[in-house]
Amino acid sequence: MTAVPQMRVLESYLAGAWRVGKGDGQELLDASTGAPVARIDASDLDLAEALDHGRRIGGKALRKMSYHERALMLKALAQALMDKKELFYEESFATGATRKDSWIDIEGGIGTLFAMSSKARREMPNTRVFVEGAAEPLSRDDTFSGQHVLTPLQGIAVHINAFNFPCWGMLEKIAPALIAGVPCLVKPASQTAYLTELMVRQILQTGILPEGSLQLLCGSAGDLVDHVTGQDIVTFTGSAATGQMLRRHPAIVQNSVRFTMEADSLNAAVLGPDAAPGEPEFELFVKEVVREMTAKAGQKCTAIRRIIVPRKMAPTVADALNERLSRLVIGNPRDENVTMGPLASLNQRQEVLARIDELRSDAAVVSGPVGDLPESGAFGSPVLLHCDRPLACEAVHTIEAFGPVATLMPYDDVDEAVELTHKGKGSLVASVFTNDPGVAEEMVLGMAPFHGRIMIGNRQSARSSTGHGSPLPMLVHGGPGRAGGGEELGGIRAIKHYMQRTAVQGAPALLGAVTGRWVQGAPGKADSRHPFRKSLAELRIGDQLTTRSRNVSLEDIEHFAQFTGDTFYAHMDEDAAGRNPFFDGRVAHGYLIVSFAAGLFVDPEEGPVLANYGVDNLRFMTPVNAGDALKVQLTAKEISPRISADYGEVRWDCLVTNQKDEPVARYDVLTLVAKEWSQTAP
Amino acid sequence: MTAVPQMRVLESYLAGAWRVGKGDGQELLDASTGAPVARIDASDLDLAEALDHGRRIGGKALRKMSYHERALMLKALAQALMDKKELFYEESFATGATRKDSWIDIEGGIGTLFAMSSKARREMPNTRVFVEGAAEPLSRDDTFSGQHVLTPLQGIAVHINAFNFPCWGMLEKIAPALIAGVPCLVKPASQTAYLTELMVRQILQTGILPEGSLQLLCGSAGDLVDHVTGQDIVTFTGSAATGQMLRRHPAIVQNSVRFTMEADSLNAAVLGPDAAPGEPEFELFVKEVVREMTAKAGQKCTAIRRIIVPRKMAPTVADALNERLSRLVIGNPRDENVTMGPLASLNQRQEVLARIDELRSDAAVVSGPVGDLPESGAFGSPVLLHCDRPLACEAVHTIEAFGPVATLMPYDDVDEAVELTHKGKGSLVASVFTNDPGVAEEMVLGMAPFHGRIMIGNRQSARSSTGHGSPLPMLVHGGPGRAGGGEELGGIRAIKHYMQRTAVQGAPALLGAVTGRWVQGAPGKADSRHPFRKSLAELRIGDQLTTRSRNVSLEDIEHFAQFTGDTFYAHMDEDAAGRNPFFDGRVAHGYLIVSFAAGLFVDPEEGPVLANYGVDNLRFMTPVNAGDALKVQLTAKEISPRISADYGEVRWDCLVTNQKDEPVARYDVLTLVAKEWSQTAP
Repeated sequence: MTAVPQMRVLESYLAGAWRVGKGDGQELLDASTGAPVARIDASDLDLAEALDHGRRIGGKALRKMSYHERALMLKALAQALMDKKELFYEESFATGATRKDSWIDIEGGIGTLFAMSSKARREMPNTRVFVEGAAEPLSRDDTFSGQHVLTPLQGIAVHINAFNFPCWGMLEKIAPALIAGVPCLVKPASQTAYLTELMVRQILQTGILPEGSLQLLCGSAGDLVDHVTGQDIVTFTGSAATGQMLRRHPAIVQNSVRFTMEADSLNAAVLGPDAAPGEPEFELFVKEVVREMTAKAGQKCTAIRRIIVPRKMAPTVADALNERLSRLVIGNPRDENVTMGPLASLNQRQEVLARIDELRSDAAVVSGPVGDLPESGAFGSPVLLHCDRPLACEAVHTIEAFGPVATLMPYDDVDEAVELTHKGKGSLVASVFTNDPGVAEEMVLGMAPFHGRIMIGNRQSARSSTGHGSPLPMLVHGGPGRAGGGEELGGIRAIKHYMQRTAVQGAPALLGAVTGRWVQGAPGKADSRHPFRKSLAELRIGDQLTTRSRNVSLEDIEHFAQFTGDTFYAHMDEDAAGRNPFFDGRVAHGYLIVSFAAGLFVDPEEGPVLANYGVDNLRFMTPVNAGDALKVQLTAKEISPRISADYGEVRWDCLVTNQKDEPVARYDVLTLVAKEWSQTAP
Repeated sequence: MTAVPQMRVLESYLAGAWRVGKGDGQELLDASTGAPVARIDASDLDLAEALDHGRRIGGKALRKMSYHERALMLKALAQALMDKKELFYEESFATGATRKDSWIDIEGGIGTLFAMSSKARREMPNTRVFVEGAAEPLSRDDTFSGQHVLTPLQGIAVHINAFNFPCWGMLEKIAPALIAGVPCLVKPASQTAYLTELMVRQILQTGILPEGSLQLLCGSAGDLVDHVTGQDIVTFTGSAATGQMLRRHPAIVQNSVRFTMEADSLNAAVLGPDAAPGEPEFELFVKEVVREMTAKAGQKCTAIRRIIVPRKMAPTVADALNERLSRLVIGNPRDENVTMGPLASLNQRQEVLARIDELRSDAAVVSGPVGDLPESGAFGSPVLLHCDRPLACEAVHTIEAFGPVATLMPYDDVDEAVELTHKGKGSLVASVFTNDPGVAEEMVLGMAPFHGRIMIGNRQSARSSTGHGSPLPMLVHGGPGRAGGGEELGGIRAIKHYMQRTAVQGAPALLGAVTGRWVQGAPGKADSRHPFRKSLAELRIGDQLTTRSRNVSLEDIEHFAQFTGDTFYAHMDEDAAGRNPFFDGRVAHGYLIVSFAAGLFVDPEEGPVLANYGVDNLRFMTPVNAGDALKVQLTAKEISPRISADYGEVRWDCLVTNQKDEPVARYDVLTLVAKEWSQTAP
């Protein structure tokens, strides 16, 4: 009796359990060897129930947490995944990725979790409601104001991902959704779903995410999208054709479902007219083009497809590219010497060959011969095409061979180079290689309306550049038109995509109750204790101090000038100050005003207020002349306790007025305040 | 021979000329009298040419101007329209609007131009590229950074508007588009297009807008949408059915055209459990519901359709509403005593009656009888329905009678009230009447994910409130789900909707060349002249001053403390400061640091620098102890000359470092600087 090894069957994690489809499904093969890796099938799974489970169980659990709590949860998850990274690298070989390729997917993905977590904790307060922008006064007497707030949508985020980044593709999308407080259901492309499934298993095993906040569908989407509602979000990364089908799906159209699409585009790299052979930018350009043509065997939505160069440099560029391409070692990525792996599947290779045939209507193949390719697997050679009259052609700007394929196109002047990039009808990214600020300005601004990201390459950034192909968590990713019109990432912008923006209007006191941020015009609460005597446990939004008033004398102004060295004429010279369009005569320094203000509002004794770490939005509104008297109203505006420290941030509204009650200066004072404080501390 | 008066034929302004359609078209009737007002037809007009004309001629002209230039252009336009307002009021009667109704449309619309213009000039610099957010450092050594910029899309904005606001509907949409630098083609709903046509004629006659920046299509949209591209924007306000047809239009789907939809929704007004009869909020609620039911005869997308009240108060609310409704004077709005005009047309009235019939499956009519209605015209009575078990019903939450019709619904507790609002599946606006901060918080946050705007009504804001129904230029307008999922207005957010956001990456010097804003890490330019000696005519981005260094002594700290009164323990008490988690011992005041910094960087002589008007983003990064030495690097970061003044804003990057070159503080110093300065000035 011999044991027949059972083939791995991918499972879906839906409605709280790992489940398998009822059908036989599809066999997934190793890209290099053609050996079977797993079967995938999702027949008869209850997807409506899964969506509902996510909304009810996952959404509810997530919304109970604050932004910082969810961000810290992601940080912990990232750490746990980083500890397991070798598991993912090993599995990733089957997709055809070299270790370098997998780095982008695995560590790039985990890095995105870290980065989004850190951005959220730095740029969002530790609350459950995100207050956006300043309050808008809607009445002259401050009895009616407006404030924008963002709250998590009460639906589920459905992420339909592409085959080329089974890890990053999932992680870069769940990170902002989970921080926003929205549960996710991830549907990876079947071809490489085994790696996503492995990662989801590892994620769930950590127990870090609340149940229902992450579900996985391995296999066909079935009726998934039929069940989405106006509180759900659907994102799609992949081919334009599938994306368009989703965009006009009745459930998406009828419920105005937020739909973000990120489609492959024919991204350009442009060589500046100044970047002649011999200049560092020429070498950097050639290196970057080859890197982007061959990383993941060219199967990246950000890969360079159009190589736009000054006409006279085109032959030199072609030679330089071919020279580098000829040095590639193509093979099974488990071999460490291999520099380019296979395409993801035989189907994928067939697709690429068909597209190359179409491109040949506009362009000629100019790449040199490559050594023998391995016989098994989905291997393909890099192909460099050349299109001599690209302004007159269409195919080279719109037909994409999703493999190691790019077309060289000459241009005659900068305007033409810009126009050529536009012919892609919207791209995720372009790069410009130049060391000339004038060329950078003209090209980048000319190209910007058609691109989501533009990288400038030059000698200064040669070592530190993250490259043409890498979306970064702090910068937006997505492009207009052909690229799908979506926007992802971009720091906390990405988190906002999963929330509803609502303008709330009302009397300042009620507005403050809703937003948790004190609004100008709301009554302050004064009591016998100075607010600096209160720890975070005791301090409340709206706690207010109104100080005594202090005269500002000419001697004060002169003394401050001499002491600080700031003897600016407006403070020192009555005639010169009088000639100034804003002043009637000598005025006090702005820095004197804020210094005196601190002297008025500070409580000097040791206490829970630990430090003043900054000031925001300081505006001087009325000049202060000698003889004026200043007083301060200081109000606790926003309180954001840190989770992993025994203090938090308190933002104070500071209003300085003069003896006529005119506003002299207004600003936010930023302090760190202890969570607890014992009055009897030494 | 008797002269037969020729009926007015509405014209379209397309591709630089006023044009009439080739067909007979449709006759438009006065809503009150049924008398013909005009004919409308757009057969055989070349709409592809018009779109292209806008993109080529209008877009190019607009993009040559700066944000402030375009904003001032709109201000001038608003002033010119205000001078002509009586023309519009007179014409507006034909639509059935009372003068009060028309005020919202005409002066509300013109006011939106003023407000958007002012917002843009206050919150955007006077440039052609909008730099968004802070630069993102992407390398440790500041050789590679990122910056988001927004540039105007190079297409055209197609605005397909509803019949109920022929002026405001156009103006609120063209204002942000034109400020962004994007030309517009407006297609008003036929029924009231004569008023839009009149206003467009007046606009064009002013000669204020460059040719091609505003076009008008009176009549059917024909093949208009077939020709849109990925650089165009389509907005739609009107019925969900038409909006959904547009959303899945092949040209919109295939080109990922930005599409914003704003559909009528079943907006709720909720009476808080605290707002019992006798409380001011009860009266305010009743007044607001009647106002929103009857303004424009209920033909507002923001009108109140669902009146959600505590169960025990429902009968009292019904009586109070009916009492007020019975006092309405319905008739031809040319009569000054009339308080509610007719519906827009007989068709519209028929529609409303049909929807009321559908609502009656869930609800009973409880409004009292109204006096006789005029026989001619499209008059209709207000109808109040009552649905006793609204949680169990669907029709009352989703079927909209677009007229003076609303349904009263009781709730048992706050959770149920919130759930009832959700049953509308997404609304433009809701209002909550309460004077209880706890109720406001619970209700507003519970409702927020389903609403674009929520107004809280209470006694404080009773006089100043702009009301449930009024979208405001500084607050977002639009709602999720059934409301169309769009977002308009909201201050400069609206302007951004017409621009492409692009992340630009590169070496700081090149990044600065593209954005026009100095980026940390870019080299500064120092010359023999102090930058404070340069007028705007001479000052350049990157002009930099590095100061000498200055020691901070314990005497300085003590003196500053005594002089300002800021004797905070961290500055005065070595032991207490040592116990502080952030300090090793006594530290200098933050305000001392910035004051000394000014003493170092200021050039004291009279010159082009007129005033320091504020400071942004001040952060203290390293504590300063006695014995440390401070120096400052001051760099011109952003220059924004004002158009209508002889000075402008200059934003300086100010970096204070210590003797170890550690950053002590970083902030933006905001100054006003003269455009010209004669060195020989007295």
